[in-house]
Amino acid sequence: MLPTKAYAAPAASVPLAPFSIERREVGAHDVRIDIQFCGVCHSDLHQVRDEWGGSIFPMVPGHEIVGRVTQVGDHVKNFKVGDLAGVGCMVDSCRTCPSCQDDLEQYCETTGFVGTYNGREKETGAPTYGGYSSQIVVDEKFTLKVSDKLDPARVAPLLCAGITTYSPLKQWQVGAGHRVGVMGLGGLGHMAVKLAAALGAEVTVLSTSPGKEADAEALGAHKFVVTKDADQLKSVGNYFDFILNTVSAPLDLGLYVNLLRRDGTMILLGVPPEAPQLHAFALIGGRRRIAGSLIGGIAETQEMLDFCAEHNIMSDIELIDIKDINEAYERMLKGDVKYRFVIDLATLQN
Amino acid sequence: MLPTKAYAAPAASVPLAPFSIERREVGAHDVRIDIQFCGVCHSDLHQVRDEWGGSIFPMVPGHEIVGRVTQVGDHVKNFKVGDLAGVGCMVDSCRTCPSCQDDLEQYCETTGFVGTYNGREKETGAPTYGGYSSQIVVDEKFTLKVSDKLDPARVAPLLCAGITTYSPLKQWQVGAGHRVGVMGLGGLGHMAVKLAAALGAEVTVLSTSPGKEADAEALGAHKFVVTKDADQLKSVGNYFDFILNTVSAPLDLGLYVNLLRRDGTMILLGVPPEAPQLHAFALIGGRRRIAGSLIGGIAETQEMLDFCAEHNIMSDIELIDIKDINEAYERMLKGDVKYRFVIDLATLQN
Repeated sequence: MLPTKAYAAPAASVPLAPFSIERREVGAHDVRIDIQFCGVCHSDLHQVRDEWGGSIFPMVPGHEIVGRVTQVGDHVKNFKVGDLAGVGCMVDSCRTCPSCQDDLEQYCETTGFVGTYNGREKETGAPTYGGYSSQIVVDEKFTLKVSDKLDPARVAPLLCAGITTYSPLKQWQVGAGHRVGVMGLGGLGHMAVKLAAALGAEVTVLSTSPGKEADAEALGAHKFVVTKDADQLKSVGNYFDFILNTVSAPLDLGLYVNLLRRDGTMILLGVPPEAPQLHAFALIGGRRRIAGSLIGGIAETQEMLDFCAEHNIMSDIELIDIKDINEAYERMLKGDVKYRFVIDLATLQN
Repeated sequence: MLPTKAYAAPAASVPLAPFSIERREVGAHDVRIDIQFCGVCHSDLHQVRDEWGGSIFPMVPGHEIVGRVTQVGDHVKNFKVGDLAGVGCMVDSCRTCPSCQDDLEQYCETTGFVGTYNGREKETGAPTYGGYSSQIVVDEKFTLKVSDKLDPARVAPLLCAGITTYSPLKQWQVGAGHRVGVMGLGGLGHMAVKLAAALGAEVTVLSTSPGKEADAEALGAHKFVVTKDADQLKSVGNYFDFILNTVSAPLDLGLYVNLLRRDGTMILLGVPPEAPQLHAFALIGGRRRIAGSLIGGIAETQEMLDFCAEHNIMSDIELIDIKDINEAYERMLKGDVKYRFVIDLATLQN
């Protein structure tokens, strides 16, 4: 076993602190990665606080991982020592069900996918530990190639926030001629703006905060609508082909559904703590749709990383020391981050 | 003006009683129809009781109309005296907006469509009166051709219940190889079963009542699932490509959304009195969708009537005297009808 430094939450809602874990020995199909950077996703906080139930403690969060390959197993084909590599939300799945066969491992129908953390390894049942750590060992099938052209710290959030917004944009074939609304300008939202704009769509940020207009424009949004302003809201009634809803706070869904044009689709990416009410009239009256989307498959994640390398798309981040992670969580809760905290794992010197 | 016998609700929640209305003179593009049969839709009851707000009284309900053409305007091209004709939920729309141009008048984006009753004529603002009456005058563009091959009384409900279920089945290209669930075995639901089966899908009725199994089978359903039986429900988890939800009673939507397979779609056709909660996890976890659909356009309604004539599809009905309409409403509220009341307008002899 490979002794590995980490930061862990010992129990629900207890602050994270230095912790030692062991990674498995490098198997024939495994890649060992020295972690350089790991993004801080809102779901890290949800799971550390056991807000979704079923959390496994101690928990080492982190599923937006970028680092250098330090060792490869005998049968590894696509990685060599020294490569820049990424790991996202999944490290395994059943690999045989229809969804896995369709390269949609995130919807694995038998066991469900194995989460990068807060999951259990298929064969041993051992808990998985995430990227708030010095190294990780992952099957190459769940390891991504990361271009050297981009800043690796700013690439890290692409592994979750990037693919979570890219996947529905591709699924629904969003591109030139489409009007896309983005609700919520956080980790997911700011990537949604960049990616939808890069795909050729007209992008509008829908925000409750007038102060975010300049930021939205800087990210590439073409329009900005303050949703608390009735006139501004009216100006985009029946307007959008797609709305990417990244909000995980309680909200009046009907208000936003009415901004969709006929046959328009709202894509849910955030999970509010209380299920919002679904206003059937708003859907029926415009033949509108609400659809869900969960991260993306491994092949599509690679496609997204390649797309971002080609278009020079990265996350806007605030780099932090790992000792500041608990404070970062508090700031994240207040929305006080532009737009993703990323941990510099060089600071993990416990 | 053309004096016309009718039944009307004088005010919200007051029983319907004999009433006299006047139809407009037959204009150049109008068709005058002697009404033979008119179906009784649940939305008649909602509007007579002003449950959706904005009801216009006195109200003559009825938008599932079949009768014989007795007069045509000078410029009418497609109808002649003696033809069997139908009128559905709409008698006009703006005719120029993108939705009207796309033959989707039900989503008219400027004025909204003019309802067959409880609407207002575009030019005069006069209230429209529906099919609980002896005759109606309608622009030929909103008049449907009805085949002489079918029983006209059993055709009447196709004008609303038929097209409301046919339209989403066609929009989503439902056919052979698809598994379709139908929630609610009433006026809409029984047509959904017949039409989905005729289109080649495997049809399952999802019901809270074990006693409806034989009826479901007789209508053409291939499977029957009692949703209160946990084992039966489990047997159709992640199973359906489409679920047509015709239920307008309060319900746990999440329970049913989880019966959809990945990329499956629930189509909402009923409007519960209180908006149900939308469980984002259920949508996100399986990339599922909830979509709305509202009746159907005039061209598609004609296509549906032709499809039904070709496949010998009609509604299962209980024919009533118009004097029994108030009692029929009470029975409809209890679900005590298989599956649609249809008024025989020959009984309108006040």
